[in-house]
Amino acid sequence: MSFSDLATQLADISRQCHTRGWALGTSGNFSAVVSRTPLRLAITSSGVDKGGLSPDQVLEIDEQGNAIRGSGRPSAEASIHLTVARARGAGAVLHTHSIWGTILSDAADGDGLAIEGYEMLKGLEGVETHEYREWLPILDNTQDWSAAAPQVEAVLAEHPKAHGFLIRGHGLYTWGQDLAQARRHLEILEFLFEVLGRKRGATWQR
Amino acid sequence: MSFSDLATQLADISRQCHTRGWALGTSGNFSAVVSRTPLRLAITSSGVDKGGLSPDQVLEIDEQGNAIRGSGRPSAEASIHLTVARARGAGAVLHTHSIWGTILSDAADGDGLAIEGYEMLKGLEGVETHEYREWLPILDNTQDWSAAAPQVEAVLAEHPKAHGFLIRGHGLYTWGQDLAQARRHLEILEFLFEVLGRKRGATWQR
Amino acid sequence: MSFSDLATQLADISRQCHTRGWALGTSGNFSAVVSRTPLRLAITSSGVDKGGLSPDQVLEIDEQGNAIRGSGRPSAEASIHLTVARARGAGAVLHTHSIWGTILSDAADGDGLAIEGYEMLKGLEGVETHEYREWLPILDNTQDWSAAAPQVEAVLAEHPKAHGFLIRGHGLYTWGQDLAQARRHLEILEFLFEVLGRKRGATWQR
Amino acid sequence: MSFSDLATQLADISRQCHTRGWALGTSGNFSAVVSRTPLRLAITSSGVDKGGLSPDQVLEIDEQGNAIRGSGRPSAEASIHLTVARARGAGAVLHTHSIWGTILSDAADGDGLAIEGYEMLKGLEGVETHEYREWLPILDNTQDWSAAAPQVEAVLAEHPKAHGFLIRGHGLYTWGQDLAQARRHLEILEFLFEVLGRKRGATWQR
Repeated sequence: MSFSDLATQLADISRQCHTRGWALGTSGNFSAVVSRTPLRLAITSSGVDKGGLSPDQVLEIDEQGNAIRGSGRPSAEASIHLTVARARGAGAVLHTHSIWGTILSDAADGDGLAIEGYEMLKGLEGVETHEYREWLPILDNTQDWSAAAPQVEAVLAEHPKAHGFLIRGHGLYTWGQDLAQARRHLEILEFLFEVLGRKRGATWQR
Repeated sequence: MSFSDLATQLADISRQCHTRGWALGTSGNFSAVVSRTPLRLAITSSGVDKGGLSPDQVLEIDEQGNAIRGSGRPSAEASIHLTVARARGAGAVLHTHSIWGTILSDAADGDGLAIEGYEMLKGLEGVETHEYREWLPILDNTQDWSAAAPQVEAVLAEHPKAHGFLIRGHGLYTWGQDLAQARRHLEILEFLFEVLGRKRGATWQR
Repeated sequence: MSFSDLATQLADISRQCHTRGWALGTSGNFSAVVSRTPLRLAITSSGVDKGGLSPDQVLEIDEQGNAIRGSGRPSAEASIHLTVARARGAGAVLHTHSIWGTILSDAADGDGLAIEGYEMLKGLEGVETHEYREWLPILDNTQDWSAAAPQVEAVLAEHPKAHGFLIRGHGLYTWGQDLAQARRHLEILEFLFEVLGRKRGATWQR
Repeated sequence: MSFSDLATQLADISRQCHTRGWALGTSGNFSAVVSRTPLRLAITSSGVDKGGLSPDQVLEIDEQGNAIRGSGRPSAEASIHLTVARARGAGAVLHTHSIWGTILSDAADGDGLAIEGYEMLKGLEGVETHEYREWLPILDNTQDWSAAAPQVEAVLAEHPKAHGFLIRGHGLYTWGQDLAQARRHLEILEFLFEVLGRKRGATWQR
């Protein structure tokens, strides 16, 4: 798919996520692979309103995260997108800040979140039965994601079956072979966060 | 109504359910009877995004669940749609994965969910007063619905007045004489799930 | 305003209430005064989907609740609309079935619900300060509203300042001098129900 | 930006806030600076439905809060908008009545609300890390905001880094250099209110 088509699709996804409340303010960022060798991503510009994002606010970046097309500035989290695209062979990476993702990232005990026994899990690529346990690692938040890239790589290597990960107090990263699959994973994980959150929510205290 | 008109209506219902969050990811499936003898259903294709479902993603299946029109693949749950259409004489069958349906299917004690005393119950066909107790059976989830068809039939026979049933950790099946009635039943049951869930939710633990 | 203009506005309000989840299924009904002497109401037809309601599904009824224009059937609750229009001099009466209205109608102690101290109360006609206590009477539900009309009249007379009332397990009635004011009252009361419900919800058990 | 362009943008923001449930009934008001010397604001008219607000329901007011353009009546809270525009050099001021803003304004202990440790905070102007503590002052509600202007000024002076403040039982004021920044602050703060409210909500009692 051309950069221009990917930019149009990323703009659509941005607006849909804003409508659902998963990318309010200027939060969230979304990318898709333009070429694999060398690695090039189409990625939403940093600091723009996702509710009104237009295709010309999508940049192309190289494998060092430098903008090579478009006028905005790539997000400081571009390195996470690049790391996921490389480590998972993902064709698209989506990052959201939802209410329930934020709450669960903060309230889960230990270094991950288990989701088990729901039919909805079968929408995750490679899952064939509801009798499945998805383990989403939770990483601590940082302001230097370039420096933290090896930590992201290590977590992905340690959990080869994970379909996403959470960053504490921050939100979700998920991905897929292409934008359609990544978006499916996003909707499924956000749905399951809400189910878990509403079941357990009332007993938590910050 | 022609297959083509039913396909258009099923696509509309799919998008409405996606908007309300009752069919995120690729979850949910929706069908309507094209002919009674032999039994033929128009049914949404498996694995497609319900938010962007178009009429050409609706299939026609025969009474064995084989696709006889359209290009996609029928859902593994097509046998449930066929069983309900036969056992209830339903003209349409709707299946959703909502937050509250999922939570209640999992949290209810015993093998069913009682809903009693609400005016909203009067929107269910044949219910004339709020002083009514709807009992929705809850079936255990499985990955082999063809094999489980006799169990679905038995539950429908045992509860002849039920307007739907839940599958544990999975979601709701409801139906009606036609798509309009099935959709009315869907909105009513999802509304009542949310009422029950919000009233009782905070005291549950998985 | 002509019957035709009122019918258009009632259809708009019906669709807006359906979108917000306040009139799912075929629940809710909405009316406006066409003439005062003799009393004539434009009122939504019984048993129609509020999400797709069109102006030609609005009837005109006389003061006995008989349809004198349009083809559908008036709701069994038309007598409540007529009673409110007479007792309060209301130009419009709106009835919704919301999640929080249903929960509060059921969970409130005693025969009414107090709402006090919120700035939002100032949007109710005649309220000049947030230091105000709105008392919404709660009536028991019945299936014979024609017979219950004197009870509705008595409650309205006993609570001359109330801007609405709840029916237990059923929903809200509110009204205004015209449709715009009635709709304002509706949005304010539904907002306040949600505030109260979310603050107290977790401690209730049915 | 011309008054006419600002009026169009304020109407857009009004409708968006109404859709999200942050400005139901006739609640909320929104302004933008037309000129700095002398100070002139474009501000939404008092008592109008925010869901259908059109640009011609936006007024221009002078620094005493008198309407100098347009036909409606300025809100009694126009003095708050003027005070914020002066004290913070803000180019736009947004005031909402949301469910969670109302609940938190009422339930927080003491005279303010702390929000700490969330990535979302970085969307607030000047915040560079999630390791940040936003303190939102809470003012008591009053019906005489002209008289209370010095109190608002004092609170703003005492908390020079605050990006907004709450009024008890009433709602949020936030602002920005321009409408885009103010809207970003609004979405971020409302998001964080919902996160805090859902985490703590169940244990509160009015």
